[in-house]
Amino acid sequence: MSKVLILSASDVKNLLSMRDVISAVEDAFRSHGRRTMKLAPITLTLIDKFEGEHEIKSGYVEDYSIGTKVLTYYKHNQPRYGLPALSGIIVLHALKDGQVLAVMDAGYITSVRTGAAGALGAKYLARKNSENVAVMGAGMQGRSQVAALNEVLGIKSVKVYDVDRQRAVDYVAEMTAKFDFKIEQADSPRTAIRDADIIVTATPSNSPYVLNEWIQAGVHISAIGADSPGKQELDPAIVARAKVVVDDMSQCVERGEIQTAIRLGLLGRQDIHAELSEIILERKPGRANDKEITLFDATGLAIQDITTSYRAYRLAQERGIGTTCELG
Amino acid sequence: MSKVLILSASDVKNLLSMRDVISAVEDAFRSHGRRTMKLAPITLTLIDKFEGEHEIKSGYVEDYSIGTKVLTYYKHNQPRYGLPALSGIIVLHALKDGQVLAVMDAGYITSVRTGAAGALGAKYLARKNSENVAVMGAGMQGRSQVAALNEVLGIKSVKVYDVDRQRAVDYVAEMTAKFDFKIEQADSPRTAIRDADIIVTATPSNSPYVLNEWIQAGVHISAIGADSPGKQELDPAIVARAKVVVDDMSQCVERGEIQTAIRLGLLGRQDIHAELSEIILERKPGRANDKEITLFDATGLAIQDITTSYRAYRLAQERGIGTTCELG
Repeated sequence: MSKVLILSASDVKNLLSMRDVISAVEDAFRSHGRRTMKLAPITLTLIDKFEGEHEIKSGYVEDYSIGTKVLTYYKHNQPRYGLPALSGIIVLHALKDGQVLAVMDAGYITSVRTGAAGALGAKYLARKNSENVAVMGAGMQGRSQVAALNEVLGIKSVKVYDVDRQRAVDYVAEMTAKFDFKIEQADSPRTAIRDADIIVTATPSNSPYVLNEWIQAGVHISAIGADSPGKQELDPAIVARAKVVVDDMSQCVERGEIQTAIRLGLLGRQDIHAELSEIILERKPGRANDKEITLFDATGLAIQDITTSYRAYRLAQERGIGTTCELG
Repeated sequence: MSKVLILSASDVKNLLSMRDVISAVEDAFRSHGRRTMKLAPITLTLIDKFEGEHEIKSGYVEDYSIGTKVLTYYKHNQPRYGLPALSGIIVLHALKDGQVLAVMDAGYITSVRTGAAGALGAKYLARKNSENVAVMGAGMQGRSQVAALNEVLGIKSVKVYDVDRQRAVDYVAEMTAKFDFKIEQADSPRTAIRDADIIVTATPSNSPYVLNEWIQAGVHISAIGADSPGKQELDPAIVARAKVVVDDMSQCVERGEIQTAIRLGLLGRQDIHAELSEIILERKPGRANDKEITLFDATGLAIQDITTSYRAYRLAQERGIGTTCELG
């Protein structure tokens, strides 16, 4: 009989600080650059009848474990049933003997590891004195990106835009209570990004709503929302003009923000400057000067889930947190 | 906060009779024939350094749920560490809103649903008076196939062959204690299949060990072992000569027993008589006469895991079995 550790969303939240998550995700990128990991193809199944999606991301990281994230996304759950849009688990198997180690909630980890990835993009690509942030999309990810950015730079102000004004109002209230910097609502994407050093796009949009002519020299863009075929937030001319860094070449070409620019022939694989891991490992330079526009295209890698959830698993063992269950 | 039901291997074993499993798997085949289900591509990741495999099978079945099985296979675990070769979970999500319903051990369900699929192949394809069974491979699956066959026909005798003689001795002792029919060890594959009405191949072989000239008219073969690229148990001439029925066309062509005959050009897709579901739904005939050699190629479908584990989930709810955990 084998024992398995079960960690709830609140266990994971209590175990992991944003600093832990950033450190785990940076480790994931290092292993990505060193190829001491494997990413399996992503499986996406559409549940057409109920407008739901079921997605599996898996792989392994040496010195960590095998990990599989199984996550559904039902975008109408909140209005229809008062239920969360995301529901799923991460299961960790030991690399050496394949035994199940832990099963934990996937929602919180997905949110914070995505925030951490965006912050690492900014850490390695944004201008050093960046302090004004524009956030598109006042959802969970809009919150997570700012919480993570706050760990890697000194934020002075955040402007948030959402098509749903009430969501933006709620965002400002909630985030103002949490952080010391100034947080305001913007009336349009254009006003949000005026004077921004860093632009975070974190909406589920399928069409561009940030135009090329609004983008000023020196800006860094974290393109977070577009992570599956058909999604897009930026004018493809921005992608063509920026220094493009991706989290993973194959995933971004297929499902990232850059997919449209590639399809339109505005960007070729050879135009992609680097994978973020190459910059972290100092194999390629990051930003060259203060005028460059940099773009980090983040689709989300299973290895980020693995290192982050494994960190939670180890901390839970140390601190005696979670529920131990018979499984095998 | 959401509650999730956790079921251990022994919970599942206590909940499901072989009759329940056969009924659930037959339901899976019906939904397969009616296309009221979806099978996602299988993800297989090799953990080369430790000679392990990590496999994900997923999909959904209408009127049941979404299901994902994440299972590792480390074939050296028993001799090396005294650990089971298989370790994994099945997670069920509700079809309508995607919420996680249950997480349960995958090992026992994989074993019995595969047994049930083999038995259904025999129920619909073997001669009605079949009573003598030859089993290749004295492992867990050799046991499960016989336990399931015993529910669909009157077994008179079982002959078992294994390259490891001690395993066959143990099999005979264990199965004789469980069942009333005669169970004997065979010295070779050839002597095992002499006078057999049904041949079950359930080894991890990568090369053929059952030759065409040994196969007599009227036999039914359940080809269970070959379920991934490279695996093979039968002389491809047997496949070319038999009436071939598959559990799923795409999976069997790519990873089933028939993969080699297809690659060699001895069998084309058009030569495959049917998917088992078409025979169960009476859209195509099964066995035509008592002389025909029938072959059921079973690669194992995620939908079998889904209907079987969902059955366990519902029975657990009715009977108050399992552990309820906070997850979301």
